[in-house]
Amino acid sequence: MDGSPAELRALIRRGELVGPTAGLAPGYAQANLVILPGDAAFDFLLFCQRNPGPCPVLEVVESGRYEPNLVAREADLRVDLPLYRIYGSGRLVAEEKDITGYWNDDLVCFLLGCSFTFESALLRAGVSLRHIEEHKNVAMYVTSIEAKPAGVFSGPIVVSMRPIHESKVVRSVQITSRFPLAHGAPLHIGDPAKIGIADMTHPDYGDYVEIKEDEVPVFWACGVTSQAVALRAKLPLMITHSPGHMFITDIPDEELATL
Amino acid sequence: MDGSPAELRALIRRGELVGPTAGLAPGYAQANLVILPGDAAFDFLLFCQRNPGPCPVLEVVESGRYEPNLVAREADLRVDLPLYRIYGSGRLVAEEKDITGYWNDDLVCFLLGCSFTFESALLRAGVSLRHIEEHKNVAMYVTSIEAKPAGVFSGPIVVSMRPIHESKVVRSVQITSRFPLAHGAPLHIGDPAKIGIADMTHPDYGDYVEIKEDEVPVFWACGVTSQAVALRAKLPLMITHSPGHMFITDIPDEELATL
Repeated sequence: MDGSPAELRALIRRGELVGPTAGLAPGYAQANLVILPGDAAFDFLLFCQRNPGPCPVLEVVESGRYEPNLVAREADLRVDLPLYRIYGSGRLVAEEKDITGYWNDDLVCFLLGCSFTFESALLRAGVSLRHIEEHKNVAMYVTSIEAKPAGVFSGPIVVSMRPIHESKVVRSVQITSRFPLAHGAPLHIGDPAKIGIADMTHPDYGDYVEIKEDEVPVFWACGVTSQAVALRAKLPLMITHSPGHMFITDIPDEELATL
Repeated sequence: MDGSPAELRALIRRGELVGPTAGLAPGYAQANLVILPGDAAFDFLLFCQRNPGPCPVLEVVESGRYEPNLVAREADLRVDLPLYRIYGSGRLVAEEKDITGYWNDDLVCFLLGCSFTFESALLRAGVSLRHIEEHKNVAMYVTSIEAKPAGVFSGPIVVSMRPIHESKVVRSVQITSRFPLAHGAPLHIGDPAKIGIADMTHPDYGDYVEIKEDEVPVFWACGVTSQAVALRAKLPLMITHSPGHMFITDIPDEELATL
């Protein structure tokens, strides 16, 4: 779908564009959203600082505000995502298209980088991605690697897996290393057992895709980690984007690249 | 001076090693220290997140703790730096070798990356640095570029300036770009007036060094920025390292490199 990020956000806000955001506003970064009460904000920001692979911070919108002013102009984080999930004490209590009714001025919004950015870069470089070809969600697994804890936030790192042709593994490391704000370089290459994944055919989130003879499973830290640890903290209120229903920013993917 | 970082910290703790830390434990990263009351910690961490050039966070040690556990083993941030400055409401009230008497369990310690790391890399690559040859402090200037504010923290970015031979400017960008946790790539190359510096011969901090005919002034974001904005916030208590008297970490410089 064509349109600038601002136009797409306006369509979403008016309810004229629903559904997942993958493929929208190509070339612009999308973001994960996590909204938490103010008294958990320092711990969560520190958790992100200690775990920049799974939790790369694009912008924090402090208590009393819902308009980012660094990654998007004239946006409203309460209505500009197509679908939200509302959690109470770690349990899903509702899925909504608008969270204005849940809003209070104590809440803090965290926008975290998203793998769409590095996937576009891989595709441009001729690296095929099976889950996109097969119109599936990427396969995600809970690992045996503990994130570095901070305050009430702790738990294992979740990874996404993409089968990469053996001739493209090095190139994939190079390309994704340029995007530390979109999870960056792989966390692991090869044997899933080494990071505590027993059964590749049953991912913890998303859909299984086949790994062929001449392919290697490559694992990247995944933004689901932040939601999983936030859920474990059983905060009275937590709001996130619904899986795949991301916030579309005004930031060109390339602006997130380091070198 | 030889010795592992842990040995040097032990000498400093016993008062057997005093003075600036430049040149100590070559190959290991040193860190700026900023200690603030807990109620300012979220704003300060957010200020650092928004301004990673001047304020690259190596580790945050939360309320109730004074031992980092990521960048150094068995260290005590109250006694392991050679000299501290204590500020009250934005004014220098004391300079001490030991801050145990000022300690309380509400304080939060921030360790920020230091330019020694990228200076070593420049020297290894054959880029001369005049302030080191002349045994001076690097020249630092307050710019007209405002840092992105966060809560009570705001103010201009302070830069350090190094005259670089015109044949080495590109190489200097490449080398320092590898170290985003030590201020990273230059903020500006060339005309000082473009970033609001009127008189190069009178730096705001440190010592002036000559810029020769075949050299270009190159400006990097400087850790002094964080201290300057923290001072402006006039917090009831703030403790920092004394200029040049840094915390010696166990982290090899190269471990901070991105690529």
